[in-house]
Amino acid sequence: MAAACIFCKIIRGEIPSMKIFESDKTLAFLDIGPLSKGHSLIIPKYHGAKLHDIPDDQLAEVLSVTKRIAIAQGVQDYNILQNNGRIAHQEVDHVHFHLIPKPNEEEGLGIRWPTKAADKDQLTKLLEDIKAKV
Amino acid sequence: MAAACIFCKIIRGEIPSMKIFESDKTLAFLDIGPLSKGHSLIIPKYHGAKLHDIPDDQLAEVLSVTKRIAIAQGVQDYNILQNNGRIAHQEVDHVHFHLIPKPNEEEGLGIRWPTKAADKDQLTKLLEDIKAKV
Repeated sequence: MAAACIFCKIIRGEIPSMKIFESDKTLAFLDIGPLSKGHSLIIPKYHGAKLHDIPDDQLAEVLSVTKRIAIAQGVQDYNILQNNGRIAHQEVDHVHFHLIPKPNEEEGLGIRWPTKAADKDQLTKLLEDIKAKV
Repeated sequence: MAAACIFCKIIRGEIPSMKIFESDKTLAFLDIGPLSKGHSLIIPKYHGAKLHDIPDDQLAEVLSVTKRIAIAQGVQDYNILQNNGRIAHQEVDHVHFHLIPKPNEEEGLGIRWPTKAADKDQLTKLLEDIKAKV
C-alpha cells in the first residue's frame, strides 16, 4: 500500500468508487471518465507502478476477473489495455487494466498501429538476446 | 485446437515462429510485424477467439509470462493490449496479448483516448446492472 496513491485510497475505502467486484487480491470498479459505456478498471490490490513490479501470485486472477466482468456486461467487442509509463499513456502509478467496450468506431479505445518494416536478421538477433534472459 | 487457426498452427509447429517462451498452457513469440523493437505476442494455447472464451485456468499464467518477457527485455515503458473483435482491431481469432515497448512518441502503440462526459446517474444504474450479473 502507498499512502498517497489514489488507487490504494480507493482500496482502503478512503475515496469512494463504483465497485463492481472485490476479492483478497483484486478490485474492479467503473472508470468515471469512460471511453465507452462499461469502461472498467481491474487492479491488483498490491501496490506497484508497473506490471513488472507485481508479484506473480498477485496477477494470477486479474484476467479471470476481467473476463467475468466482460461476460457480466455481455460485451462481444472490447479492448484490454494496461499502460506502463507516462509515454505509454499511464496516468495513475498503480497497475490497472482497462476493460473498454468497443460499441462502434467513434466510442471506445482508438488505436494507431504504425507497423515497422521487420528486418529478419535483427529480429533473429533480438530473439536470441531475449531468450538468453527469459 | 482449431485446424485452420494460424496461432494453433504455430503452437503445433506447422508454421515457424520466433519463439521466446513455451509452457504447457502458454506460448510467447516475437511479432514479425512489430510496432517497436521487442513487440511480442503472448497466447494461451487453448483455442478461443475472445478473452471470454478462455477458461480461467488457461489464463492464470499469461500475465506472469508477459511480465517475465518485459523484464527480460529490460523495458520500462510499454503497453499490454488484447483486442476482441474486428472493430476493436483484432486480426487473428485466437486470444493474444501484445507486449509493445514504447521507446518514444513515434514508435510503439498509438492511443486515442476520446473520453466521454460521464453522467453519474447513468453510471450508478450501469453499476447496479453489472453487479447483479457479476
